[in-house]
Amino acid sequence: MPHGGFSGSLTSPKFDFAVDMGHPFLNRTVDGFIRIGAVGGCKVAAEETFECLQRGDVSKHKVEHALKKMCKEGAYWGTVAGVYVGVEYGIQKIRGHRDWKNAMVGGALTGALVSAVNNHHRHNVVKNAITGGAIATAAEFLTHLTSS
Amino acid sequence: MPHGGFSGSLTSPKFDFAVDMGHPFLNRTVDGFIRIGAVGGCKVAAEETFECLQRGDVSKHKVEHALKKMCKEGAYWGTVAGVYVGVEYGIQKIRGHRDWKNAMVGGALTGALVSAVNNHHRHNVVKNAITGGAIATAAEFLTHLTSS
Repeated sequence: MPHGGFSGSLTSPKFDFAVDMGHPFLNRTVDGFIRIGAVGGCKVAAEETFECLQRGDVSKHKVEHALKKMCKEGAYWGTVAGVYVGVEYGIQKIRGHRDWKNAMVGGALTGALVSAVNNHHRHNVVKNAITGGAIATAAEFLTHLTSS
Repeated sequence: MPHGGFSGSLTSPKFDFAVDMGHPFLNRTVDGFIRIGAVGGCKVAAEETFECLQRGDVSKHKVEHALKKMCKEGAYWGTVAGVYVGVEYGIQKIRGHRDWKNAMVGGALTGALVSAVNNHHRHNVVKNAITGGAIATAAEFLTHLTSS
């Protein structure tokens, strides 16, 4: 894994300076945006680097294209994560405790919100809500399994 | 969320009877397969129910098709999860501790393995490895953010 050291040194030191917005809800949302946005950006960076290596040519135009794509995809991942963290925090406050049902409802609401904002049809909004809920539940289960 | 109660009553009681294979590695892998397979199956069930409700007709043929799709997608989700949990457990044992780098490497290896088994091109294997690593890292960060 050549990317291990690369993204480790890029991201680890930055994340210690968490932005303080004065409220845990905002802190979490912004933290989610920055962290997951960085992950999304790193993913595009790794993909574009691999494509450049495979083609064997690096031009100014391609680097610019890669940077734009990194920003765009990073912002998208960050927004989805920010919405999810915010929604999950709200559900946690309302329900009073935390389990996989929070993740499911949070993922479903996030999927619905994100696809509604992107002007999809009502049909797709429901499908994205179902997919979002399923993915969030699966991620919740998996993290518990690997951390136990 | 009409699906909350439905999948809650379907899945919660089952998961308490964990299969004991005699070794934590096998236990986790099987547990991951069952849990995430159930999540994948529930996702397809919810999607197919929604489609039936929207079209307004339920035939025997469609129910059979939905059941087949549930099994197929459930097995796929379960396999990916089982591989991920197994790989992550191995990495954790080798590295001796647990952080987001485990999730990243585990996700990348799982993405590479699953797409290599599915006979994709070398190009796609690397892309899936990158995507898998990014998704696993994002899930790890998100679960930490929402649980802290």
